[in-house]
Amino acid sequence: MVDRRSFLTRVGAAGGAGAMFATMGALGLAPSAEAATRTPFQPPQPSDFRLRGRGAAKVLILGAGVAGLAAAYELGKAGYDCTVLEAQDRVGGRNLTLRGGDRLAETDGATQRVGFSQGQYMNAGPARIAQWMTTMDYCRELGVPLEVFTNSNAEALIYNESAGMREPVKWRTAKADVHGYISELLAKATDQGALDQRLTGDDKERLLSFLSGFGAIGPKSAGYAYTGGGRRGYSVDPGAGAREGTVLGPPPSLSDVLASGVGRSFSFEFGYSQAMLMFQPVGGMDAIPKALAKAVGNGRIRTGAKVTGITNTGAGVRVEYVSNRKTRAAEADYVIATLPPQVLAKIPHNLGAGVQAALRTPVPASTGKIGIEYRSRWWEQDENIYGGITNTDLDLATIWYPSYGYHGRSGLVIGYYNFGSAADAYARMNHAQRLARALDQGAKIHGDKYRRDVAASTSIAWSRQEHIEGGWIGWPSRGAEYRLLNEPQGNVYFCGDWLSYEIAWQHGAFESARKVVTDLHQRVLKS
Amino acid sequence: MVDRRSFLTRVGAAGGAGAMFATMGALGLAPSAEAATRTPFQPPQPSDFRLRGRGAAKVLILGAGVAGLAAAYELGKAGYDCTVLEAQDRVGGRNLTLRGGDRLAETDGATQRVGFSQGQYMNAGPARIAQWMTTMDYCRELGVPLEVFTNSNAEALIYNESAGMREPVKWRTAKADVHGYISELLAKATDQGALDQRLTGDDKERLLSFLSGFGAIGPKSAGYAYTGGGRRGYSVDPGAGAREGTVLGPPPSLSDVLASGVGRSFSFEFGYSQAMLMFQPVGGMDAIPKALAKAVGNGRIRTGAKVTGITNTGAGVRVEYVSNRKTRAAEADYVIATLPPQVLAKIPHNLGAGVQAALRTPVPASTGKIGIEYRSRWWEQDENIYGGITNTDLDLATIWYPSYGYHGRSGLVIGYYNFGSAADAYARMNHAQRLARALDQGAKIHGDKYRRDVAASTSIAWSRQEHIEGGWIGWPSRGAEYRLLNEPQGNVYFCGDWLSYEIAWQHGAFESARKVVTDLHQRVLKS
Repeated sequence: MVDRRSFLTRVGAAGGAGAMFATMGALGLAPSAEAATRTPFQPPQPSDFRLRGRGAAKVLILGAGVAGLAAAYELGKAGYDCTVLEAQDRVGGRNLTLRGGDRLAETDGATQRVGFSQGQYMNAGPARIAQWMTTMDYCRELGVPLEVFTNSNAEALIYNESAGMREPVKWRTAKADVHGYISELLAKATDQGALDQRLTGDDKERLLSFLSGFGAIGPKSAGYAYTGGGRRGYSVDPGAGAREGTVLGPPPSLSDVLASGVGRSFSFEFGYSQAMLMFQPVGGMDAIPKALAKAVGNGRIRTGAKVTGITNTGAGVRVEYVSNRKTRAAEADYVIATLPPQVLAKIPHNLGAGVQAALRTPVPASTGKIGIEYRSRWWEQDENIYGGITNTDLDLATIWYPSYGYHGRSGLVIGYYNFGSAADAYARMNHAQRLARALDQGAKIHGDKYRRDVAASTSIAWSRQEHIEGGWIGWPSRGAEYRLLNEPQGNVYFCGDWLSYEIAWQHGAFESARKVVTDLHQRVLKS
Repeated sequence: MVDRRSFLTRVGAAGGAGAMFATMGALGLAPSAEAATRTPFQPPQPSDFRLRGRGAAKVLILGAGVAGLAAAYELGKAGYDCTVLEAQDRVGGRNLTLRGGDRLAETDGATQRVGFSQGQYMNAGPARIAQWMTTMDYCRELGVPLEVFTNSNAEALIYNESAGMREPVKWRTAKADVHGYISELLAKATDQGALDQRLTGDDKERLLSFLSGFGAIGPKSAGYAYTGGGRRGYSVDPGAGAREGTVLGPPPSLSDVLASGVGRSFSFEFGYSQAMLMFQPVGGMDAIPKALAKAVGNGRIRTGAKVTGITNTGAGVRVEYVSNRKTRAAEADYVIATLPPQVLAKIPHNLGAGVQAALRTPVPASTGKIGIEYRSRWWEQDENIYGGITNTDLDLATIWYPSYGYHGRSGLVIGYYNFGSAADAYARMNHAQRLARALDQGAKIHGDKYRRDVAASTSIAWSRQEHIEGGWIGWPSRGAEYRLLNEPQGNVYFCGDWLSYEIAWQHGAFESARKVVTDLHQRVLKS
């Protein structure tokens, strides 16, 4: 049976995007090309072989992260004989959700036992999905229920200590002030004729009308001045009877607003990957790898299998791995290697010096998170913050309020999600030190209560996760090395978000898996 | 037992907001006054009477909408003998969730039988809750589970037909273009010295740095030009391998962007009541009145009881009402009348000509909605729109995509939510005509598919709802009439969102109920 999307993706695969859009127009599906931005993908299927009289091949997939599981899942649809080797004792890779009872080891030997209470969880790796991402399609196909991930929230805070801010400010207040002042400035300049070379009379009129609403500024007679207003928020909310509400204010001066740097935080909301609405699986991000693993079949996934050698044999590929302290070997027609490049580079192989140099080219990036469970949801009860992210210039970078369990008894805050040198600094600490620093820094924003009523906490430093060794990688440039690893080396394919244009997103892993599956399948059909 | 919030609200009630904030500071709950914006409220309780040797009074509450139910709920905490008279056969008033099997009658006699499938619902009245609103506190207290209401979404659309737009544009694209061009203009003016009277050298540097990020504009060497970019969206999404993605573009000219009027839509996101994040009860807004009614006790609520007379007797109040076609009378110490003023004004009373004139002062506002259930969720599957609101200048005003049931088999779109003359125009049509027009108008945005696969639909014109007769009211000004009705008239109190500063929000109804409950209780304690 062919559903509408499958039909369209087949047209897309056969005729290119132009043909697909033409077909969609004829079906009345898309008023414009904007509506269909996803890259076409046609999953391999058994009938592909019936038509050509060839059988599916045997494929070894290294790594049961999102890329590896997706490759096994898609190849499995056409009857490929896939086996996934995974060094860890779980599937998911960086897609890791931590819950009470889990253990988390770091490469220096330290192990945390996760103490979160029932129903609380921490997405230690990926935590958000944009609507356009292929990840959404897999959630639909696999029946993973979704809910909104609260990536931005007018009630969350901005705090730039190094800019001299003495207290945090709500996003809504910062936006009101920045939009107000830039509207005032642009209205003044426009009205004074400073932009007459760029603006017609109609343009000016429309621009001034827009700025009046965008900035909530005064009229021309008041010099277009921004003087605050209800968008900033209220110190006493509007209520009944005579209680009109007390507007928060007055706003800081234009110079103070600019100096605070609050506006630096705004543009993250406009990014293609970060603009709201965003989504998360209900109950934890690991619902995705769990659903993939179930679809692949647990019998096809060998956990605790650490790869120690990859050899192109001409006829196929031989992989050595250690499992239960024994060295074993497996042979297959093809290998799809989804391990991070810095991990792959440490495994002996016969793929050549060029491949080795290419694997060493991308630079691993540090990142870390701490999950702090509190015995009350004070952010909701006392601060009206129901989700969202507080943005700071502290080394904790951001504080995330949970997108689930609203009004529950307890709740779990991400106390830091940071990168680079800040992540390295926290990585060097033990967990108790990380927690202590996260609480000290967070108390600058939420006051002393931030230190109290902590029920449990767990921190992760991705650079210290065995078999992963980093949050993600960055390419100095997507040059010859990137192109080389995006092509099969003999019968070995590389695959992962690191071979995509959406690094550090599951979307990149899914797209890479689809690319490799398509490439491999076409090769098998031609062979 | 006294929980933290109750304790604080008592301190607030006794000592005013200043005392409350001081106490909060001592408890370390609030780093600043912004954190505690809600007006203090201390529910009446039995111990209030034990201390003073007086008993609770008998209260008749007219109307089982949110205000009436909340008043009965709060008074009931202290043992007041409350009875709620409700003309309709259900509680909730304008808080109405329509589901399959419901019947919806209009004042002209037309009746719709709601045909939505299992699990689909339409919030015909209130549909969204801001985080700061008292409604949130009642959801917590009553155990009504919440989820995000998707009030704005970068993937939803803007379409201004009268401005000459030929096709809708995604919010994200409109924002990228408007922010880009206003940043370009302001950067040019700033750089050219046009604002030197208002900006110091430091200000200018900081402003230019902000605009660079806010507008994603070019550097000075490129004249700070806005030329589009990934924030607009992609015609082909970034993927794996060589698939860098194709940025949607180029942007329309500055003049065209200004002429399109897309920027007019932006400021709704900044409003104190509309800024994201917003919330809704899981499963339908009527979870709130249902929970209130359960807490009040169904035995205290008489539905199908239409009030026909209100008489202050000196000792108390006598209310006449019709139930099962019989005229009945009830007596009580006090009455709380929560019916809309235009409905109250039609009921005989002895409260005087001043009260009657005051009840006639506010102006009822028209509003309407249509719920359209589709057999597929094409907005998700084909357009990547997972919730949010499309804004237009068509007479449908807005299209709402559902904030629940993501990836489900079917889904329910609000095909119009409009006001004023547009709402009046739809109100005059029968349901089939409303649906036909909504589909014709919506097809301008979503193409012909908008007309297909409609499984069921229901429309409401609030001006044609018996006993309600309008969406809400507007005060020409909150003058003597507003103040008069906010005071008891003899033993009759008026109550409802229409006596608050948050008209058309449940918050206003709750706040009014709290005010009246407080006033009445203090009077009883003193009597």
